[in-house]
Amino acid sequence: MSELRKDPVTGDWVIISPERARRPTDFVKEAANVPGSPGACPFCPGNESMTPPEVLTLPERTPADGAGWQVRVVPNKFPAVEAVKALSGSAGGLFERLDGLGAHEVIIETPDHGATLAALPESAIESVLQAYQARARELQSDKRFPYVLIFKNHGSEAGATLEHGHSQLIALPLVPRRVQEELEGARAYFSRRGRCVYCEIIEKERAAGKRVVLENEDFIALAPYASRFPWEIWLLPRRHRSRFEEASESERAGLARALKGALAALNKRLSNPPYNLVVHSAPHGEASDDDYHWHVEVMPSLSRVGGFEWGTGVHINSIPPEEVARNLRELKDLRPGDRSPKAKPEDA
Amino acid sequence: MSELRKDPVTGDWVIISPERARRPTDFVKEAANVPGSPGACPFCPGNESMTPPEVLTLPERTPADGAGWQVRVVPNKFPAVEAVKALSGSAGGLFERLDGLGAHEVIIETPDHGATLAALPESAIESVLQAYQARARELQSDKRFPYVLIFKNHGSEAGATLEHGHSQLIALPLVPRRVQEELEGARAYFSRRGRCVYCEIIEKERAAGKRVVLENEDFIALAPYASRFPWEIWLLPRRHRSRFEEASESERAGLARALKGALAALNKRLSNPPYNLVVHSAPHGEASDDDYHWHVEVMPSLSRVGGFEWGTGVHINSIPPEEVARNLRELKDLRPGDRSPKAKPEDA
Repeated sequence: MSELRKDPVTGDWVIISPERARRPTDFVKEAANVPGSPGACPFCPGNESMTPPEVLTLPERTPADGAGWQVRVVPNKFPAVEAVKALSGSAGGLFERLDGLGAHEVIIETPDHGATLAALPESAIESVLQAYQARARELQSDKRFPYVLIFKNHGSEAGATLEHGHSQLIALPLVPRRVQEELEGARAYFSRRGRCVYCEIIEKERAAGKRVVLENEDFIALAPYASRFPWEIWLLPRRHRSRFEEASESERAGLARALKGALAALNKRLSNPPYNLVVHSAPHGEASDDDYHWHVEVMPSLSRVGGFEWGTGVHINSIPPEEVARNLRELKDLRPGDRSPKAKPEDA
Repeated sequence: MSELRKDPVTGDWVIISPERARRPTDFVKEAANVPGSPGACPFCPGNESMTPPEVLTLPERTPADGAGWQVRVVPNKFPAVEAVKALSGSAGGLFERLDGLGAHEVIIETPDHGATLAALPESAIESVLQAYQARARELQSDKRFPYVLIFKNHGSEAGATLEHGHSQLIALPLVPRRVQEELEGARAYFSRRGRCVYCEIIEKERAAGKRVVLENEDFIALAPYASRFPWEIWLLPRRHRSRFEEASESERAGLARALKGALAALNKRLSNPPYNLVVHSAPHGEASDDDYHWHVEVMPSLSRVGGFEWGTGVHINSIPPEEVARNLRELKDLRPGDRSPKAKPEDA
């Protein structure tokens, strides 16, 4: 028997339908991704001239666009949106438009072509998060960009076109509806209950334990109640804060540790699955301090999105989140600090 | 320079970004789908016992689950939702749920394992549409199902798990948000302008011509202004009507002709691309007669949906719809009745 579950923030429904996992298929499974030659990779050290000039490196150093970086941020050479002098558009008619104003940047996570984010040391993941924050802060100070999204596509199935580990940042001239819906859902919950819905989720999930994947002092990773995708994982800071760019050094470290633990666990169970990672954060300037709670969502790309999902917005997920969390918790190699609440009864 | 466009009905923005079509990739393209052995196909004639008992065949005939059908409708053996006696759920708390009540059916479009929908004769496509209508009518008479979605996933990239040509129907215990947004968008336009937004789109698109792919007496196929996907095509009935199941025999014939023409054109340009097809229709019982306009959306699955799309709901499309329409109109083998308005100046 399948079940419909309502996302406590957005109100969107999903269908959890374990029966569908047993469906037969007569399509032969696709070949695994075969990486091309790393020699031609524009993100590798020595090829800095193949990208637009860098806007940030960690550690900071001169000369620009030279060697010695660990994390490098460059404008996307094929931007979805870009900086334009003035924003022109046409509103009011049937066919409204705006110039594609914005910024589209690439965060190169490591000089090592073959290293995935999960394989990097925690300190290197922290540097990637630090670069995210620095760029988000910089771009949000530009009034033309009410919204900045940081995300990562890992693997071609998840939308990546280059293999070398990288994340992306897109600054937009508007706050998109999907973001508004989440903000409004959180605001409505706060009005009704006087409390942040995410804080409530964290408290309830820690008490129940069954959807918790791991936790540390700063972060909790859980398989969300209304998971849209099989093996979806959310990473939430335990301290209430509406904006990612305001996270402390300790919270960055906690996220790096939780992220490495969660990705390592997914890799162990699913052998390097393609995934999307999205940083959810309140837009700069919105008064969402009390009601919104920044977090990171990791969505493995294992199932195809079809006509039903596009037609309804309702996702069909064949793996209950309780099963995902139990399965990942069973792994023995989660770091000592990354145990589930079951293993730390004093926290329950 | 890219451009943001607003969908005139839902208000959702898309980014049309032709520059991104030139991006390099170092992932090797996946192997094409290889079909398995048709001998084991549960949708082939002779294997009727491999599916749950049929709920409809065209032409109608006895004995049930025997030979002689052209279109056969059966319950899905691995349903996302199914009929249950009473709907139980829990509302009001943080974690709301409902039993997975509904119906999930498969419309087997042809006895011929290797025939795609586009390859069927128009009369056979009409029979498929007739089966859609008969099942939608039947299920909408059940008060437990406020919404029925008809859709088709063609090819494994588009979410299909079996190769034999089939569509699906899912009846749900609620009207999903995505559908509500479209209905509300159409209603708001009607309140503002006193006119159906889709009728307005059809009129404006026919006058301009640049996004029209083909048209016949009953239907128009166009590349929508705010196309979310490369090569997306909408098929709209020229006569205003809110519900697909009320379409006349002549409209079914017009849709069959337009659909065959549009799919044949896509096949010619893209060699049998995977696609999703979704029938958009007002829910039974909703008072949307004046403001909503049923139609069919065809979305080829050529690009990957990534973190940006999931995080914002905004799609990045690297092929402007004007280019898609021009490209498809150039094909010489569209049927004489399926010419673009450019070829029929008396219609402009």
